[in-house]
This record gives sequence, C-alpha cells and structure tokens, in this order.
Amino acid sequence: MSEKINIGIIGAAGYTGGELIRLLLNHPNVELKLVHSKSNAGKLLSDVHGDLVGETDLKFDGPELNFDSLDALFLCFGHGESKRFVSEHQIPSSIKIIDLANDFRLSADSSDGGRKFVYGLPELNRELIKKSDTVANPGCFATTIQLGLLPLAQAGLLNRVYTTGITGSTGAGQSLSTTSHFSWRSNNIQAYKTLTHQHLGEIHQSLHQLQDSFPDLSDKKLENAQISFVPWRGDFTRGIFISSQIETKKSLSEIEELFFRFYDDHPFTHISKEPIALKQVVNTNKCLIQLEQTGSMLVVHSVADNLLKGASGQAVQNMNLMFGFEETAGLKLKANYF
Amino acid sequence: MSEKINIGIIGAAGYTGGELIRLLLNHPNVELKLVHSKSNAGKLLSDVHGDLVGETDLKFDGPELNFDSLDALFLCFGHGESKRFVSEHQIPSSIKIIDLANDFRLSADSSDGGRKFVYGLPELNRELIKKSDTVANPGCFATTIQLGLLPLAQAGLLNRVYTTGITGSTGAGQSLSTTSHFSWRSNNIQAYKTLTHQHLGEIHQSLHQLQDSFPDLSDKKLENAQISFVPWRGDFTRGIFISSQIETKKSLSEIEELFFRFYDDHPFTHISKEPIALKQVVNTNKCLIQLEQTGSMLVVHSVADNLLKGASGQAVQNMNLMFGFEETAGLKLKANYF
Amino acid sequence: MSEKINIGIIGAAGYTGGELIRLLLNHPNVELKLVHSKSNAGKLLSDVHGDLVGETDLKFDGPELNFDSLDALFLCFGHGESKRFVSEHQIPSSIKIIDLANDFRLSADSSDGGRKFVYGLPELNRELIKKSDTVANPGCFATTIQLGLLPLAQAGLLNRVYTTGITGSTGAGQSLSTTSHFSWRSNNIQAYKTLTHQHLGEIHQSLHQLQDSFPDLSDKKLENAQISFVPWRGDFTRGIFISSQIETKKSLSEIEELFFRFYDDHPFTHISKEPIALKQVVNTNKCLIQLEQTGSMLVVHSVADNLLKGASGQAVQNMNLMFGFEETAGLKLKANYF
Amino acid sequence: MSEKINIGIIGAAGYTGGELIRLLLNHPNVELKLVHSKSNAGKLLSDVHGDLVGETDLKFDGPELNFDSLDALFLCFGHGESKRFVSEHQIPSSIKIIDLANDFRLSADSSDGGRKFVYGLPELNRELIKKSDTVANPGCFATTIQLGLLPLAQAGLLNRVYTTGITGSTGAGQSLSTTSHFSWRSNNIQAYKTLTHQHLGEIHQSLHQLQDSFPDLSDKKLENAQISFVPWRGDFTRGIFISSQIETKKSLSEIEELFFRFYDDHPFTHISKEPIALKQVVNTNKCLIQLEQTGSMLVVHSVADNLLKGASGQAVQNMNLMFGFEETAGLKLKANYF
Repeated sequence: MSEKINIGIIGAAGYTGGELIRLLLNHPNVELKLVHSKSNAGKLLSDVHGDLVGETDLKFDGPELNFDSLDALFLCFGHGESKRFVSEHQIPSSIKIIDLANDFRLSADSSDGGRKFVYGLPELNRELIKKSDTVANPGCFATTIQLGLLPLAQAGLLNRVYTTGITGSTGAGQSLSTTSHFSWRSNNIQAYKTLTHQHLGEIHQSLHQLQDSFPDLSDKKLENAQISFVPWRGDFTRGIFISSQIETKKSLSEIEELFFRFYDDHPFTHISKEPIALKQVVNTNKCLIQLEQTGSMLVVHSVADNLLKGASGQAVQNMNLMFGFEETAGLKLKANYF
Repeated sequence: MSEKINIGIIGAAGYTGGELIRLLLNHPNVELKLVHSKSNAGKLLSDVHGDLVGETDLKFDGPELNFDSLDALFLCFGHGESKRFVSEHQIPSSIKIIDLANDFRLSADSSDGGRKFVYGLPELNRELIKKSDTVANPGCFATTIQLGLLPLAQAGLLNRVYTTGITGSTGAGQSLSTTSHFSWRSNNIQAYKTLTHQHLGEIHQSLHQLQDSFPDLSDKKLENAQISFVPWRGDFTRGIFISSQIETKKSLSEIEELFFRFYDDHPFTHISKEPIALKQVVNTNKCLIQLEQTGSMLVVHSVADNLLKGASGQAVQNMNLMFGFEETAGLKLKANYF
Repeated sequence: MSEKINIGIIGAAGYTGGELIRLLLNHPNVELKLVHSKSNAGKLLSDVHGDLVGETDLKFDGPELNFDSLDALFLCFGHGESKRFVSEHQIPSSIKIIDLANDFRLSADSSDGGRKFVYGLPELNRELIKKSDTVANPGCFATTIQLGLLPLAQAGLLNRVYTTGITGSTGAGQSLSTTSHFSWRSNNIQAYKTLTHQHLGEIHQSLHQLQDSFPDLSDKKLENAQISFVPWRGDFTRGIFISSQIETKKSLSEIEELFFRFYDDHPFTHISKEPIALKQVVNTNKCLIQLEQTGSMLVVHSVADNLLKGASGQAVQNMNLMFGFEETAGLKLKANYF
Repeated sequence: MSEKINIGIIGAAGYTGGELIRLLLNHPNVELKLVHSKSNAGKLLSDVHGDLVGETDLKFDGPELNFDSLDALFLCFGHGESKRFVSEHQIPSSIKIIDLANDFRLSADSSDGGRKFVYGLPELNRELIKKSDTVANPGCFATTIQLGLLPLAQAGLLNRVYTTGITGSTGAGQSLSTTSHFSWRSNNIQAYKTLTHQHLGEIHQSLHQLQDSFPDLSDKKLENAQISFVPWRGDFTRGIFISSQIETKKSLSEIEELFFRFYDDHPFTHISKEPIALKQVVNTNKCLIQLEQTGSMLVVHSVADNLLKGASGQAVQNMNLMFGFEETAGLKLKANYF
C-alpha cells in the first residue's frame, strides 16, 4: 500500500464533518491529522459523534490551526463561511482543498485569489477534478437532480423540467428549529422554498455546460429557471428522492440507452429497470436512477443519500480522484437497507 | 334533536369501515344497526378495531344480511366488489347508499339499474348530493388533488398540471405486502403508478365539469391526461400532501381571491396564507390549501387525511347532506396534531 | 343543555395548553373566555396550533390578565411556575383551579394560602375531586404507572415493583434540545433519569394512601423507593407504555378480579384480556391495562396518551367532576389508531 | 494477504442472509461461492436485496447444492430447520459451519452426529470458538442481555434480574404479519412473550457457565427463570435496547471496574460513562454498555444491532476467530448514526 496522505477537517462537529470522520477513519489511503472544531476543542470525537465510542481516541483540535504536514483539507462550514475562512488563513498552496459549502460552486464565485475551484460532480467533471487542487463539492439536491438530467442535457433534449424532491432532516443540519423538532417532523410533510431553492443555480450551470441552449441562470432571476423545483421536508433522517417530469419525443428505450451509456464507467451511479426506493442507497455513496414514460411525458426518478453522495461521500470521491486513488477507495459501504 | 337514522356498514373490518364506526359511534343523528364483516361475524368490533375497547360492546353482524329498518348503507369494499354486491342483493330503494369504492364514480359507470350515483365531492356537487339517494364517494388522491384545482377550472384557467403527491400506508389498505412491511416502508420513499394512477379519470371528469375545454378522459387514454401525476409512497400512516404546478398569467392575489371565494361557504376546505403541513389535518375532515407563485409558475399545495376527507369522513359529510343534517355533524374532530 | 361555564387557560401556547384548547372548543358545557400566552398575545390561536386553522378565530389574550366572569382556570406552566403565579395573582376564590404542573401534587406542597389542592386522579380520588375547588393534575408517567398498581395497593399486595416505561417526545414539551431533534430521536431509544424520575413521589404517595405499609417517600430519599423505575425516551410523539413486574402469590384470575372490580365504574380505564398496544389509546383519554403471570411473577402492562389521560384530558375529566358534568363530557374522542 | 476462503450461505434471501452477503462482499479474506435460496434460484442477489444494485452481479444458487470447494457454510434458516438440513445433507467435515438459528445453542441440543456446536459468543467463549469447526450463533436478545450480565456472573454477583428490552421489526424476520404491517407498527409499542421469550434458555446457560449458583434452566421450567424478561416490539427497524435491574451491595465504581476488566481485550463491546442510545450501534457490530446505581439497585443498559452483533455480524466475527483472521476483519463498519 502506498504511503498515506494527511487530512484535515475544519468544522468537524457537524453532520458532514461527522460523516467525513466516519469515512476517513476506515479509508486505506489517509490519516486523520487535524479534526478541528472551535466549540469542541479538546473533547473526544466520540463525545460529539456518539457512534465513534470504541472506534477512536482522537480529540478535536483547536482553537488555533496548524496546517503543517497536511496534504488535503475539507471545509465543512455553513454556507458563506468557507470563503471567509480561505481569505483569512494562509493555507499553503501545496494543500488541496475540498469545500462542502456552496461558496465556490458557481463559476462566478469559484475564484479565490490565485485558485480556481472546479465543480466537483465526478459524473460531469471527472477529468477536471483529477487535475484540480481545489474542488467545490455539489449540494445534495443539486447532485440528485443533476444526475437524473445530465444524459438528457448531453443529448440536447432538455426543456422545461417539473421536479419534486423530498429530503431527510439531516439536510437541514444540526441546528434546532421548529421544523427539526421531533414532535413536529415525525409523520409530517411540508413544502419549503417552493421554486426558489438555492441549488437551482448550480443545477442550471451544469446542464448549460452540456446543453448550450439551456439557460445557465447566471442572472439569478428565478422566474427564468427552467427547472421548476418544489422541495419537501420528509419525516426521515437521510436521503433524497426526486421525480422530474419532462416532455420528449424520444422513446423510453432510446432514453435509457443514453443513460446507460452516460454512466457506464461511473462506479456510483446506476440505472435500474425496477422501481427504486430511497433505502437502497441510504448509508452508501450511490445514486440510483429509474426512467418511466407515458405518451410524450418522461419521468426520471433518482435517489441518493444527502450526507454521502450528496455531501461527504462525494467529497471523498473527489479526494480520491484528486490524489489518484481508486475512485471507490473507502466508499464501499455496507448499506443498512432497513 | 330529531330522531336518529339507522345505519349499516358493509365491509366494516377494513380501514375505511373502522373509521366509519369511530365516526358514527359519536355522531348525534345516527344509530349503528348493522356492522357487517363476513370474516369476522360474531366477533366484538373491538377485537378487530382495538381502539374501541371500552367504547362499545357491538359485534360484527353476518354472515347473512338484514336490511330491515335501515335508512342508509355504507359500502366499504375493495374496488369492483360494490357493483357486484348491489346487483346481487335486493337493497330496498328506501335505503340511501354511499359507496366508498371506485365502482360508481365515473359517469359511464354510475348507473346501477334504476339508480344513478352522484359523485360525492361536496365542494363540487353539494346541491346534487342533497337530492341524491346514491352517492359515489371520491378517492383520496382524487379529493386532495381536485380541491387544489377546482377554482382554477371554474375560472377556465386550467392547462397541463404537473402534480406530485405522497400518501400514507393506510391508503393501500390492510392487506399485507412487501411495501406495507414495516421494515421496508419505515424511512423509505418510492414512486408507484407513475402517470397511470386510477384516480386520473374522476379528477379529469370533475375538472371538465367546470371547464369544458379540459378533457374528461372518458376515453381512458392516459397519454391524453392533462394531469401528469406522480404518486409516492410515504413512510407515515395517514395523510396526503400534494404539490401541483401550473402556468398562469394571473397574479397570485387574483388566484387567491378565486380560491377564497370558491370555498367561502364550505366548512372543511380552507385556504392558508402560511405554509401548510400534513399533520394540520391528520385525524380531521379538513383540507388545507396554500398557493405560491414565481414568475408565471403557480404551485398549489393541498393536504387531507386520506381516511377522513379522503374516504370515511367525506362519506359522513355526504350522509349529512343527503339527510339534511348539519354538514359538520359528527365531524368536529380533535386533531392529534403531533 | 345547562348554561355554559367560562374557562381560562394560562400558558396556552404549549402542548398541554394546545390540547386543552382542542378539547374545550368541542366541549358541550364550556366556553373559552381567556386563552393566555405572554409571548403570543394578539396572535391567532391557529398561528401557534396549526391544526386550528378553520376551527376558530380566537386570539391569544395577554399580556395583562382579566379573571372577570371566569368559572375555572387551567394552569399550563412549566413545573415550579404555577406556585409563583398563584401567589402573585389575586385569583378570586370563586374560580376553580386545575394545575397541570407538579407544584401542588405532593401533600406537603398542596396548600397555597387558604386553598388545599386535591390530587386529581379520578380513579383514586373521585369523590374528593367532586368537592374540591383546586386540583393538582397528576403527571403522565405517574398516571399510567399508578393505574396499573392501585388495585394491588388496595388489596395490600404491593411490594417492590420493577417498572420500565417509554414515553413519546411530547412528554418533554416544546423546547428544542438535542434529544428532541428529529435527526437524533428518529429510530432511537435511550434511558434517562434512571431510578430518579420526578414522578416517584406522587406515585408512592398514592399507593401509600391505599396500602399503609407501602412507603410514601415523603422523605424524598430515592434509595427508599419501592418502585424501581427506568424511563425510556421513545421514537414516537404520543403515548406511554408501562410494564411493571411484581411478585405475588395470588393467581392471575384473582388479580384480574381485583382490577375488574376496582375499575368497574370508571369510564376511561379498562382491563384487556388481549395484548394491548400503545396506539389503542393515542388521542383518547383512556388507559388500558393487561395482566400476565408466570410462576409467582406478575406483569402489569398499562398504556395511556401522555397528553390526554396523562395531562389535558384528565384535567378536563377533573373539571367535569368538579362542576358536576358528565364525567366523559367532551372526552369521547375519535382515536386516530393508525 | 493470505489466500481467500470460500464461503457458502444457505437461506440467503432473508434478513440475516442479506446482512451476511453485505458483510462478506467487502470482507478481505473471503470469496462468496455459494449463495443459496430455494425460492430465488437464478435471480440476481440485487433483485431480492435491492441495495446490492451496482455492487454485484452474483445470482442465487439452487435448487441443488454443491458444497465442493467450500471452506465454511452459514446456515440462515428459520428455527428448527438447521438441524434437519444438517441431518439431510452430507456436509463434508472439512467445512466449518456457523448456524444462525437456535437449533444448536443449548448444550443438550448441540451435538449433531459427530460434531459438537460451541456457543458462539466471543466475549464468553473466544478460545473455544477458535478451536471449533461448528458454532451456534447466539440470539439477538440473548447477546445483548448476556453482554450486560457476564461480568456480574463471573464475579458471582448475580441474583434475580428484572429485564425489559425493545427490539426492531427486523428481529421478527421478513414474513408478513399483523404486527409487521407498517400501519400497525408505526408509532406503536407492544409487549410480547412476557416472561417466556425463547432466548431465556441460552442466557441462563451462559450465566450458569460463569456463576455456578445461577440456574442453567436446562429443565426449561420458566417459573424457575432468574431473568424476568419482558420484551417489547419497537417502532423502528434495527437495534435492541436493554435495561436490567439487579440488587447488589457493591459500589458502582467496583462494578464498573469489573466490566472494564472483563471487556478490556474485546474489540466490539465497550463500556460508556455517558448515557447510551440505540443509534450509536445501529449498522455496526458493537455492543455498548452503561451502568447506573441508586441505593442498592444497579441498572445495566446495553445496546446492539439485532442483525449484526445480534446475528450476522457476530457470525462473521465467529468465522474470523475460527479461521484465524483478525477478529474485526470485514466488521469495521460505517455507522449510519442518523
């Protein structure tokens, strides 16, 4: 086995930070060197991430940061804080950065001083990611919606898309709020950010990259969005289920052929001929896609785990590509399934 | 208080039968005279419907049926069995019938011998229902989707509608199946009957009744449906949440005005200016509707309890109308809310 | 129907306050005159209790209080605040008070100036409650555990009891905390307050009232408790399930006979010969009890809804007794069951 | 890395079979050679275990069995079928067998022809397991209860134990039944097999092995059980939470010392000084234990995943020991935690 690289995680007390720790503790090519949380400095990781009891005796670093000896840094901040962090710290250029927030995802925002962030969706940008030192990890809804539409965009078949998606409570982070209270959320469903979700920008940007006629929404005018997206809060903790409706004159078998070809050499995205269900992918880095058609109306269903393929798992996948590791290293996870 | 009417329930061991019993035991104007279940004849109601322990000592009637003294009959069969039941039994014409299956909902199917069934959606057909002796109770998805679209149809504003809906496990009845197994359904989401749900017919029929240009789908060609409906299985037991997308040039306030006016004198359907959530209506006979708009895209959210406003509650509402009782009699229910 | 009494609810924005509103809006003998919440004064009740949309246009009163014309007052404070409230306000002695907190439950605490609070468990103290103007409503765990043990105490059969109980999230109130976060609590179980739960005092007090040899724990020394009680947090919102183990030489049928006799004329507590389940009582004011025995070991299972028979429902039951209404008035609730 | 051993799984379509497949597909020392299911012969594994889409193209073997080249065989039958299977087939003595049913767990049942099954609880019998060719894998409740009591038995401190436990729906297997129906089980709790659970035999046998004065219950007279165990059905899919009460004169720190020492070199069982919760161990092979005391009453809480440490994970742990692999090989699993 090759020598291991040294990894740091900043903001490691949240959900995505916790998932990164879980993944990287078992990753064959890395060593966790820096696990930073300002508010938990000195505590055991397992005091915050209770499943780590018996797994590790590591403690949270902090408050001051030491980048020495690091090869890569994951930023697990809330949105907006990554940009500030990068500008306020002298991160050696030898350290590769993967940002899990939305600070660098849009092309217009992706430069920070000398560094240009690549949008880290391997199914779209794998070769770019391999050559990049700084990657902006996609959003969870953005990942699951895009993976259901990329092959259509590549074939120039996209027009207006009507999308409904449902997400688990971990998508909203650890903070306490009315809608994260168990008594409220249990057995409940609610729409939120109807037609205005913040991932619409990155989704349009990616689809435009493959189909020039599709708007990139860089003007940020939501009334021009071609994805009409209604997100729902679900009464479960993990996972995203998407159904997108789109008109097409192509037959189902032609469309399926496009999808099979597009994802043929991508290890985590699979087309299913059978009905798909959320729990097939929970606690894995996979995305499953199913296609159905009646008349000229095509429906694309796609599912992913918002914390893995939608966040920390994809971040590790990006790290694997950036360092030349096996793309699936550390990501062959046992689904809990039930 | 007027004298009580005598009620019979056929197929009273299932979910909708159970809900009818719960409602009618506390209804001020009725007496339960016949509670029929072939497979449970002689058992206590509370042996099958466990919450009735301490509520009633009634037993299931059966196997032979006695219609004497009945004023009204609820049919709680699986779909297809009501028609057979009505044709095989000599139900005195003095007995009003409310069928909860889908046997008589479509105009083409609504005649049985001399009797013509009225489609029992009070918000659409209240005056007809009052004069009718036989009512076909609408489906649960059909009710919740229609209530979100009727005012648009009345104003002639309907065009293609993109709808996603999620339903609880009780929508699929008591029968055991892979997708009703707790280990499968817990924390899971799955699409089913994509663009082909059996309620599309009754929905189109009602909308066509108000907007002539909207197809009635009486040809049953699903590729001609103007409601593109994707139903999902949810990981909860009760309730339906619908989001329908539709283009319109009207402003949100104009649309809201249409809705407020349409439902002004209907006691169970309400427009909310605040975000709505499923549990606001669970264990009630209410439907809540919320409207949102971005650019020319209108989204109508609607919620109802599939077993009450979507089945047994609406059946009692219809009974109230048919017998001249207060429309809300027996239906002022305490929501459990949490 | 007799004239209605006028009711006030103080602290009406919480769970128990909300349940009281739901119950009293449909109660035949009362009118809601004062619905007080300091932090929500002026808002619609339905802004806080979302299921009330379409039910009432009442608003929260406040900040200043007006007791005029009231016949009864429910106090829905957090524990400790009721005593202060009563001492800080001049509540006319003509107003009957029902306190839902634990401030007046123990005999030593039950006097406030001239008034003496009666412990409001109707199955224990019905006649006292009827004659009382001030009632201390029992705790939820306390209610469910006691109802499973009272007949044994009356027969002098109690010795050490080993009890495990599980409660829904609403038992912990509306406040946000780590263990009320959906992502934490969903699919989770945890013990808390092992052998030290705050209801042990009132439970011992009641059992001692019927069996002199059982300690009343008025010394508050938990190591002397004869109820060894381990409470668990459950991953559901409503309800309490209790299993109590106790040694006895009596046969099961003798014990069952004691229970049937004890609860014979109590409308909400029932003995079941069949296995009982939590959802049989959720959203009702009932308590179900089941008895099992192997060798000399007796197990008593009991279930109740923590917000109804364990709080607001029992408070209304007490009100009914105090005012001479039917004991079940306003409490014939439709279970949601599923 | 040493050469891989060849593995067969019989009855591989059920929950424990599925978990074994998930574990063994990623195990560094094994190759899946035979995956047998009579009713699914020829189907893709992923047709039955939907999370395996994209993981493997293996198909179910069957109907006839070929033991050639196998090194080990896992039997995943329902209880009672393993014994018949072993007697009806000529399994070469060179093949090690691990039975996940309860057929060979009790000493009296543990011989089958020439072979003697060792009770496969590594924390109790690690050295015996290492030398054994046939292992009877413990039950899920049995594992979690025993791990909470073994150190007390070793110190001779056991007397009567009062235990309550709750288990997820997967504990009852895949078969459809009233209590596995989602509409029933969701948000519900129920006791079952009160004081008569089938694991009492193996629990007593193990405790007797360490503390001679504790009865082994080999007479199968349940009235002589010293573990008074009340099992509950929980409204979640995976995991077991146990609270056991027992009197002791030892101090908490003395007891904790016993536990720390007993489990010091066992990689999957850990003592926590903090409150433990079910989800800390779900989808892992771990057992966590927490101790609390008031007066002379000790409470031991223990948690494990019923399908992993309580079944398939422990089976792999036993395989690792039997073949001299690292005890944790293939069992460093990412918890899903949320």
